[in-house]
Amino acid sequence: MNFASLEALRAACQDLPTGDPKAAEAVARRQDTLTKPQGSLGRLETLVAWLARWQGCEVPKLDKVKVIVFAGSHGVTAQGVSAFPPEVTAQMVGNFAAGGAAINQLAKMAGAELDIIPLDIERPTADFTLAPAMDEQQFLAAIGTGYDAVEDGTDLLCFGEMGIGNTTAAAAIASALFGGVDQWVGRGTGVDDAGLGRKTAAIEVAMKLHGAVLHDPLKAAAAVGGRELAAIMGATLAARHKGIPVLLDGFVCTAAVAPMVRLHSHGLDHAVAAHVSAESGHRGLLTAMNLKPLLDLGMRLGEGSGACLAVNILRSALACHTGMASFADAGVSEKAAT
Amino acid sequence: MNFASLEALRAACQDLPTGDPKAAEAVARRQDTLTKPQGSLGRLETLVAWLARWQGCEVPKLDKVKVIVFAGSHGVTAQGVSAFPPEVTAQMVGNFAAGGAAINQLAKMAGAELDIIPLDIERPTADFTLAPAMDEQQFLAAIGTGYDAVEDGTDLLCFGEMGIGNTTAAAAIASALFGGVDQWVGRGTGVDDAGLGRKTAAIEVAMKLHGAVLHDPLKAAAAVGGRELAAIMGATLAARHKGIPVLLDGFVCTAAVAPMVRLHSHGLDHAVAAHVSAESGHRGLLTAMNLKPLLDLGMRLGEGSGACLAVNILRSALACHTGMASFADAGVSEKAAT
Repeated sequence: MNFASLEALRAACQDLPTGDPKAAEAVARRQDTLTKPQGSLGRLETLVAWLARWQGCEVPKLDKVKVIVFAGSHGVTAQGVSAFPPEVTAQMVGNFAAGGAAINQLAKMAGAELDIIPLDIERPTADFTLAPAMDEQQFLAAIGTGYDAVEDGTDLLCFGEMGIGNTTAAAAIASALFGGVDQWVGRGTGVDDAGLGRKTAAIEVAMKLHGAVLHDPLKAAAAVGGRELAAIMGATLAARHKGIPVLLDGFVCTAAVAPMVRLHSHGLDHAVAAHVSAESGHRGLLTAMNLKPLLDLGMRLGEGSGACLAVNILRSALACHTGMASFADAGVSEKAAT
Repeated sequence: MNFASLEALRAACQDLPTGDPKAAEAVARRQDTLTKPQGSLGRLETLVAWLARWQGCEVPKLDKVKVIVFAGSHGVTAQGVSAFPPEVTAQMVGNFAAGGAAINQLAKMAGAELDIIPLDIERPTADFTLAPAMDEQQFLAAIGTGYDAVEDGTDLLCFGEMGIGNTTAAAAIASALFGGVDQWVGRGTGVDDAGLGRKTAAIEVAMKLHGAVLHDPLKAAAAVGGRELAAIMGATLAARHKGIPVLLDGFVCTAAVAPMVRLHSHGLDHAVAAHVSAESGHRGLLTAMNLKPLLDLGMRLGEGSGACLAVNILRSALACHTGMASFADAGVSEKAAT
């Protein structure tokens, strides 16, 4: 998808399908006939209804589950914001290709295909303490790459990211969209106190430098974001247009799609937060975006790792929905009338 | 195992193997070489170390995972404490055998074998508002059935339960062991306000009737517990003796093993709480027992359903541990010295 302008992208973010509420209602009706107290499978029940709504299908499927990891390089690493050197981004892309990273193992356990999409990693974005990270064309190109990575016929998508410096970009987006600075700044891959101070300072400088455009979620994402974040947003938008439910990963992934919820209050209804990470800003960001995470396991790796872990929760939920007997079929007495 | 007396059982609960801390340390050392920021897989890392400690093996396995559901009938149902009639216990055992219950689907998704063990379900325990639920011999027999259900060579055990009335028994055990009544009384399968009042009243009566023995965790479990709860405790004890890690399920399962932690402060170190259920007393009971649940999905079904869901978290954790490349092998730069 080639978005010709920010305004074309903005229109696409505001013109969204609403899914099929009737499919979700059919799921809820069937759930109430199954051999368990009504509602006793908790979120497993509502997750199946959510899949049904966005797949537009009374019996949702999880046959084709896809994990797409986008990688990008960040000029702001020049400010000493990360515990790891910037070349690790390309090295980890190599590790993904060789099958040695966490996400390789987790995608396999989730029964998911894994795609790795590096975005110009040899050409970092500009250092956003000095200039906009991306100009409009670069930003729209990254959005388009993400959009085009989504294939029709996918049943569920997990997005992940790799990019040394990208928790700084994510914190800057959160700062631009929701105000404040400190509450979004965490240790990322494990920066020390001095690095944390540099990270906070970089975001403060960026908020002043780009202050004139920060009221606009898309311009903010271009000015202080990153290519892999833009790609995640483009892919999440494509998923909405194609009727594919999305599992969001951690802090960076959540910040990446935050502009969508600022452009449309139901812009992320087709997405579920797979987990809350240990990166310090994530819990607050989920709250600000009205997202309730499925898992809380102290993870802070990114790569789509948390999203992948949640896939088997969905598979289990669906297995109950499709495999359980009804009270009538099993000859089990229902709840006594009260 | 035939425990000849309560004192023999008490001794077995106090003479516990401590696992292999060296195996856990080896896991932690290897984790720190893998291509991820140290500690960034959060609980996935500590879970593998926990498996290693209790399996006594530096590279833990999850080849043979077993779910055992114990079922029992409760005389206290005569007090109108449940939303469902007592015959549902036997009907659900039939449903388990036919493959139609939630636990059948969830065990399959977890790659686990499922055993169903009914304990004299045609012969309910005594109504504990009138007499001890079980005499010493009945209690020890149920403990022994649970103990003997655990096979050597199992890598991980999940225990579940089925028994109309058993959240009343669980609440009574919690009340006996930790004090208070109201905070342990929840809606179980969905009892209405009047039923909730009857449930609270039944426990208050039982606390008075059996007051003289409630200081003793084993006597309390016999007086106000149930056969399936005793079996879960026996099985959890066997798992400790045989070096098998255990995933605890919901409120009933947690209450069932609570006597073990009162008899030995490390009595449940080989067990992890798989989830916190929506049954109102569970969160407080986990806190009282110093257990931190893995999942919080609003489930309140029992059957081992929450424990089963956590199995794939462990499988994913183990897959990362065994499958990931090290920094050295992958040629990825490590964290910069600070």
